[in-house]
Parts: sequence; structure tokens; C-alpha cells
Amino acid sequence: MAKARLKIIPLGGLGEIGRNMMALEYGEDIVVIDAGLMFPEEEMLGVDLVIPDITYLKENHERVRAILITHGHEDHVGALPYILPQLDVPVYGSPLVHGLISVKLREHRLLKNVRLNMVRPGDVLQIGCFRAEFFRVCHSIPDSFGIALHTPIGTVVHTGDFKLDHTPVDGKTMDLHRLAELGDKGVLLLMSDSTYVERPGYTPSEQVVGQSLDRIMGDAKGRVVVASFASLISRIQQVVDAAEKHGRRMFIMGRSMLDNAQMAIEMGYLTVPSGLGTPDELKHLPPERIAVMTTGSQGEPTSALSRMANRDHRFLEVIAGDTVVISASPIPGNVGLINRTIDALFQQGANVLYQGIADVHVHGHGAQEELKLMLRLVRPRFFVPVHGEYRHLVLHARLAHSLGIPEENTFVLQNGDVLEVTTYRAKKAGQVSSDYIYVDGLGDIGQVVLRDRQHLAQDGILLVVVAVDKDTGKVIGEPDVISRGFVDVSVSEQLMTDIRTQVVNAIDHGKAHTTEWGYINPKIKETVAKYVYKETRRRPMILPVAVEV
Amino acid sequence: MAKARLKIIPLGGLGEIGRNMMALEYGEDIVVIDAGLMFPEEEMLGVDLVIPDITYLKENHERVRAILITHGHEDHVGALPYILPQLDVPVYGSPLVHGLISVKLREHRLLKNVRLNMVRPGDVLQIGCFRAEFFRVCHSIPDSFGIALHTPIGTVVHTGDFKLDHTPVDGKTMDLHRLAELGDKGVLLLMSDSTYVERPGYTPSEQVVGQSLDRIMGDAKGRVVVASFASLISRIQQVVDAAEKHGRRMFIMGRSMLDNAQMAIEMGYLTVPSGLGTPDELKHLPPERIAVMTTGSQGEPTSALSRMANRDHRFLEVIAGDTVVISASPIPGNVGLINRTIDALFQQGANVLYQGIADVHVHGHGAQEELKLMLRLVRPRFFVPVHGEYRHLVLHARLAHSLGIPEENTFVLQNGDVLEVTTYRAKKAGQVSSDYIYVDGLGDIGQVVLRDRQHLAQDGILLVVVAVDKDTGKVIGEPDVISRGFVDVSVSEQLMTDIRTQVVNAIDHGKAHTTEWGYINPKIKETVAKYVYKETRRRPMILPVAVEV
Repeated sequence: MAKARLKIIPLGGLGEIGRNMMALEYGEDIVVIDAGLMFPEEEMLGVDLVIPDITYLKENHERVRAILITHGHEDHVGALPYILPQLDVPVYGSPLVHGLISVKLREHRLLKNVRLNMVRPGDVLQIGCFRAEFFRVCHSIPDSFGIALHTPIGTVVHTGDFKLDHTPVDGKTMDLHRLAELGDKGVLLLMSDSTYVERPGYTPSEQVVGQSLDRIMGDAKGRVVVASFASLISRIQQVVDAAEKHGRRMFIMGRSMLDNAQMAIEMGYLTVPSGLGTPDELKHLPPERIAVMTTGSQGEPTSALSRMANRDHRFLEVIAGDTVVISASPIPGNVGLINRTIDALFQQGANVLYQGIADVHVHGHGAQEELKLMLRLVRPRFFVPVHGEYRHLVLHARLAHSLGIPEENTFVLQNGDVLEVTTYRAKKAGQVSSDYIYVDGLGDIGQVVLRDRQHLAQDGILLVVVAVDKDTGKVIGEPDVISRGFVDVSVSEQLMTDIRTQVVNAIDHGKAHTTEWGYINPKIKETVAKYVYKETRRRPMILPVAVEV
Repeated sequence: MAKARLKIIPLGGLGEIGRNMMALEYGEDIVVIDAGLMFPEEEMLGVDLVIPDITYLKENHERVRAILITHGHEDHVGALPYILPQLDVPVYGSPLVHGLISVKLREHRLLKNVRLNMVRPGDVLQIGCFRAEFFRVCHSIPDSFGIALHTPIGTVVHTGDFKLDHTPVDGKTMDLHRLAELGDKGVLLLMSDSTYVERPGYTPSEQVVGQSLDRIMGDAKGRVVVASFASLISRIQQVVDAAEKHGRRMFIMGRSMLDNAQMAIEMGYLTVPSGLGTPDELKHLPPERIAVMTTGSQGEPTSALSRMANRDHRFLEVIAGDTVVISASPIPGNVGLINRTIDALFQQGANVLYQGIADVHVHGHGAQEELKLMLRLVRPRFFVPVHGEYRHLVLHARLAHSLGIPEENTFVLQNGDVLEVTTYRAKKAGQVSSDYIYVDGLGDIGQVVLRDRQHLAQDGILLVVVAVDKDTGKVIGEPDVISRGFVDVSVSEQLMTDIRTQVVNAIDHGKAHTTEWGYINPKIKETVAKYVYKETRRRPMILPVAVEV
């Protein structure tokens, strides 16, 4: 058998919100870090979410020992309900991760069949030939961990998502001492969060947001509604603290956020001294006694906040006098949706506070000085930037060069790349399958379906319906033309008549040779496409439909 | 006849990039300021651009005296080729505007039929009962004007797009003195640019970009490629200046930018001492002697920059050693496209500089302190914030309140709102038509087409094809099921068979009552929709197609 080498294989992780998943392999053992989903980009039409391609893991199923989770955000745990039914491996994460995943798996009715295990900072697990050690980092959710994976050839440090917050909401700071100790003993390879590498300096502490919320709750004469991500438990705590301080009763709207909050309360991650209010109380309390936390910070049209803005919510309509706080930063693909929600809220007469005009959100990722500190503390031999778009990885690699890590020891990996690492050398060695897996409804869809949707979205569809004699293959009668999403029916009668004429001519021309459908079909397509483009400069999908009778 | 009142009617102007158009009306005279287009938002599928609704102007055609243009950007002039064929009125703009519009009208083969007139700062036109006076402002294109419209009941000042640049590229600063003088004499109403009202402080001068470009051209060892908007003549000048200073030959790629540049050179707005290079020279010059300016700063897939990034351009492929500068800010809907282009450029090995990591772009709009200065200088009785999204108008109105303009004298208008103004009072009075007009190819499309495209984009289409006897209305034989953009054909054979069975059952069930197509059609639709949703959680467009034979 060839000498075993450590392999590092990102199976996801490129993208603004990355469906993070990293496989580490040595000999007979594979361990996976994170199993996240990605929200679809604009051109992924009708796609609900995107998950990593686990073909490689399925092919090596018997060697996959565990999935280790760094923290409970969707881009790190969201793919578990899709992956676990296909890959029966134990999952290890913090108590909060355990809670969040359980909520999620219960929704998918998968909770009973999976092996969830809790780990705490300082815990060390023996997983095959690996020893996995969890250490605390700061991020925008409690219980965020980095992982030191001690392998037969050295220690690999994976930071998870992190920033250096000296005053986090839960008071639990990053374990700088353990990182320093690891760096002291020697680290073979560092994988570090690149998301915020474009920003110079330091990311502000979550405390900044706490102070803003406090001021807003104190100053507002009416109700205060704060929108954020459902899993941002720390933010919920900050809103609760500010609300209670100013004598406001706390309400939570949006099922996912309410589920998460209730779980977090039960597990002790969220403290709501006066408890949560009920929809009934909401009706009877005066506005200045009300604080609401809700989902919808990304402007999702079916979210609680969008419904409130459009007066379509069961319990709460935003009205003049309300203050609405968007306590989140937009995912790039959602900027338009968020802006429209903000506009709708202003039109209802609300005062709207959002990033850009008020300090109501800070990023959960470290900026350049924090990334430098991590590189200095860990001082690895090899460096693999992770999390973020390709440009972030390149910039993070450059940052590492500027601190003295040689270029040849730095690897910008794309999804599916295999990095082979020995004690003194590392090199890219091949590729494994790493497609986007597009989840739509109950199943996934492929490139063909997506391309068809893009085509349909651009210029609609034009059907040419023809009856064909099933015995002779001859066309019977006249063809019909139907369109959707192509032209306004009211103004296009003449165009449709003309297209029909074009089709009749095409078929007639065909008749001289053969009446077989297989010949006429492409002929119709070509004729109609050409004519339609000339007349309209549009390229609808053209679908000749034969009905055999 | 009722006493004449001044009416202010925005026919466009809401939106990040606004298809700006403002009608001002008094008695028998209507004058229009700007005629811009808007780039489509994400959900406007397949739409090329959006233009203002000129129904009101067409209905009052004989009273429309002129269109006055503030400056040559697309969101202020881009709708002219679509509007002028429907509305034969003279257009007045600066020499540069004249040049840019001429380029555009020539493309549309409209140049001969329109009445374009040049105006210069200080010019005063008598237009019906109005006197229109043009004064210089600073923006990111030379020859940007504000307009003082002297009406029978007082002066209306429209700022156009502006910022307070004390060191503009062309050295021509804003006419603060005339604004002060107007303010001194008394201004009835101010309409002022709201685009950048979210930002505190001042927008930096274009000089900042010039210095960055100079440094980049000097430092880069290879070619330098700068992408920006085709109409950003000032930026082109800055790139030329930096290129020539460092001994680089200047090339311009992208037809629209090249057309604009050539026009600007002819008219004296752009100075290229050594002239522009030809594609042939590009092949033979050493990299450090090359500077390229190109379109594609918004990541448009067919633009020159995208082609260069994907090695699909006729004359230039981006390679390792090249420096690429994205000298523009993203329009919100384009963030994803731009990020993908930046990633592709990094993957080619280029060094990419963009807003966020380098000072390679400044906004063309004034921030809060500049907007305050405008309000103070003009000190109008009434204030109407213009340009920007609804939230920008609200924030700008608040800024005006903070400077002492009473709330009741401030009006946030939506497109189509009519504001009636007398000497001492103003109030909203009704609405005129102000739909989005979606241009796609050679014509425009309506809401139905757009909704169909959105439906098709989400989950595709499912055709149920049935042959019907044209005499009896009876269904002949078995139905067929065809789909596009719905499910992967390879994995859905069973589903298609099941849908077929469902359809057969629905028709059989129908037979008990009647065999008329009008009855069966909705029955099929309902049955299939229900079944498909249950099985897939998707809602494709379901289109029963009857073929009469």
C-alpha cells in the first residue's frame, strides 16, 4: 500500500454564504467538518437551496467516521437534513448546535434516525486515526468552535467562522491561549475564515449593536420591531436585554425564530426574564410597551417582516409611529428584496433603521487585523484560506504572504480540489466530484432543468401544436400556436397569425420531401425561431408538439 | 377657467437608477426635465430596460413644449429613443448631451427626425410661460446642469444629479454663486438629488480616483485594464491621463464606450494626446506599455470585460500579470454578476482592484453635508426630494426638516403623483398614469407576460396535450405529458406516467358529465397541479393543450 498522506478536500465553501463542507482524509479515515447549505444565486431559478455534492463521501462511505460541526448557522449545518439520510455517520457539535440541528431534523422528521453528539470546548475525540479537539472562538452565535485536528503527521487547525470580540454578548471570549499553545507546539496546516478579508482593521464588537438597540428601545415612542436571522441567538439576547431594560414586553414572530428561541431558552442560551408575550397581549399593550423580534431581514417575500410591511400579517401590521430595525447585512443576491421591504415600511409611515444609516448590525467575521493575529498565533507551515468567494481566498493568501508564509505553502482550493499534504510538502493532486446540488421542493434538479428555466424566464415559450396521423405520420389539419411569457396576447394577434402562416409554409415545404414528424419538428423550430427573432428580437423557447391521432 | 396652478408630476425617478422624468405644468404649458431609463430589477425577467410611462404626456401632447436634459447618463437620457417617436417635442441639452444622444439616436436610426438643441450654462430659454435657465453642477460626467425654471408664480430649482466637487476632472466647478443668488431672490420650490442621502459627510472628489489610477498605472508590471460605465467620460479622461503619464498606449474596448469616446474627442470633452491604439498594436506592444479601458463594470455577461475574463474576447484575454480595475460601484441587482466576474479574473491570475479594497471609484452624488448646503443656499419655500428609492426621499425630507423647512412644505412624491403648487400652498392632488414600461427586444411587454415568466422561471411548465374531436368535442385517444424546466427527465419517467394516469382519470371522471373541452381543461389543471405539488412540492405552470382534429 502506498504511504498514507493527509488529504484536504473542500466539498463546498466557495460563495458569499458558502454551504461549507471540508473533508480530511488519512489512510482509512475520513472526517468531515461542517455540512452547510447555500442560498441560491439569482440565476438559480426556482431553487430553494444549494447543498454540497457528497458523491465522494458516499463512494467512501465505510471510511467516513464523523461530521464535526463548528457552529449552528445554516451555511454550516443546513445541509444535514439532506445529507444524513444518505450518509449514516455520527455528528458532533456544541449543545447549541445540537439544539438547532434537532429543531431542523424534527421539521424533516429525521430526528429519530440520526446520531447527534454533544461536545464542549476542550473536549477531545478520538476518531479513527484523528484526535479532534474543540476550542472556543467568537462569532455571531454562541458556542462557536474552532477545531484542532491532530493527525498522524501533524496538527491541522480549522478556525470555523470567527472574529476577535473581546466583549461578546455571552461573555465567552475566544481561546487565544490554546491557539497560542498549538502554535507553539507547531501546526502543520491552518484553514482560516476569509469572509471579511477585504476589510482593513478590526470588526467592531457585538457590544456596538447592543448599545444602539438600547438607545432605540429607550427613544422610540411606539413599538420597536427588530428583524434578523432566525439563528442569530446572540442578537435575540441583545434585543431582549434592551426591551426589558426599557419596560417593553418581548414578542417573537416567525416560526423558525420562535422555534430556535424556545430551544435556546430551554437550553439556557437565551434568557428572557419576563418570558415571551403572546399574540393576544400584543393587541392590548400600549405601543411603547412592545418590542418584537422577527425573521425577514433578507426581505424574503413570505417572511414575517414582509407580511407586516404589506399589511398581510396575522398579528402585526406596521403602522406610522413604529420603529423597524433591520439588524442584519444583506446577502448580495437579496439587496433588491431588502430595499423594497425598507421602502414598503417607510411607505407605511414607520421609521426604519438599517445598516448604512445606523449601527444596528456588525459582521460576525474578523477583518484583516484579526486574520493576521490568527496567522501569527497559529504560525502554520501550510495555509489554506477557507470560507468566502474565490477573491476572498486569493486576498487571504496574499495576507498570509505579507506575514511571511511562503507562496508555495499557500493553497487556494476550489471545491473538489484534493490537496495532498506530507510533513514538509503539500500539493494539489486531482479532483473529486463537487457539483452544485440544487434542491427544489422535495428533490433536486440538474443543469438541464435550470437552463430551461433560464430560457423560459428570458423570453417565455411558444408552442406549435400539430396533429399527426399515427399510422402515416402525416400532419392533419392546421397547426396551432400558443404562447406564455412571450408577448402580450392583446397586441400580438397579427404576430400569432403570421407565425401560423410560417409554420404552415414550413410544413408544406416539408411535405414535398416527407411528412415524417422527425423531419418537420426541427424545421418548424428553425423557421419560427428565425421569424420571431426578426420581428421581436426575442428568443422564446420553441416547442413543437405533435399529437398522434 | 379655473385659476392656473403650477403642477409638479414625477413620471419616473423612483429606483436606485431611476428612469428620471419630471413634468412641470402651468396653464397651457408643460415642460419635461429628463427622459431616463432604468435597468431592470431581478424579478423583471427577460426585460432589457424600463422606461417612464408617458401616457399623460401623450394625452396632452399639444401642450408639451420641450424636454430639458440635465446631463448625459442613461438614467436621464436613455428613454429618448423610445419616447421621441411618440412625442415630437424639441430636446435641449448641453453639447455633450447632444453628442451622447446623437450616438444613441443614430443607433436607433432616429437622428434625422428629432429636434435636438444645444444649451450652455447661463443660457435662458423662453418655453411657453416658463423661462428655463441652466447652471453648472458637478457630477461624474462633464456638462452636468441644474435647471432654474422661472414660472409665473416663482422659481423652481431642479439640481439634476450633483455633488460638490471642488477639484473636478474638467476643472469646471458648480455654480454656487448663481444658486446663492437664486436663493437670495427667493425660490418657490427645490427638487434636489437624494441618491446619496444615506451617507454622512462629503463625497470625495474625483481627484481621489485620479491619484489611485496614477499609482496603479505606475506600479503595474503588466497591462492595466480599467472597466467603467460607457458614458463616464470623466473617468475615461482620468484613465487616459494616468496611462499617458506612465508611457502606456491607450485602448478602448466595448462598442458603446468607443462610440462615446470618439464623439467626446471630436467635441473636445476628451483629450487623448497620443490618440487611441488599434487592436493590431495591442498584439505587438509590451504589456507595461498597454492601458485598456472597457465596458463591463456591472459584470454584464456579454460585455467586453466578461469576455476577457472568460477568454472569449476577440482582441484581449486577461492573463496572469494583468491588473484589472473595476472603476464603478455595483447597481444593487448586479452584485452577484460583478462578484463572479471578479472571481473569474482572479482565476485567470490577474490582480483585481475594486471598490472595497481600493480607492478606484467615487460616487457622483452628494452626501448629507452637500445636500444640506444645497438646501441652505437655495432656501426654498417648498421641497421635493427627487432621484433615489422611496427611503432616500424620506431621509432627504427629514434632512430638510432638520434644517428648518417645515414638514408641511416637504413632499415625498411617488411616480404619477400630482403636486399642485400656489404661491403659499402646495398639496398632492390626484394621480396620472405612471406604470413601468418594460422594453424587451423591439417592443414592450405587460404585467401578464412578466408574471408568466416568473411562474415559468420558478418551476417550469407542464403541458397536457389532448386530441379533441372538433365536431363532438370528445377526447380522442390518450393524453400526452411534456415538461420543460420542471424535473430532470432522466429521473422522472415514473412521475410522468403517474401524471398521465391522473389526467386519464380526470377526463374519465369528466366524461360522466360532459366531454366538452371547456369543462375538462380546468379539471385537468386542478388535478395535475394538486398531484404534482403533493409529489414534488413544485408548482409548474400547467397548460392543457387541445388539438382539434
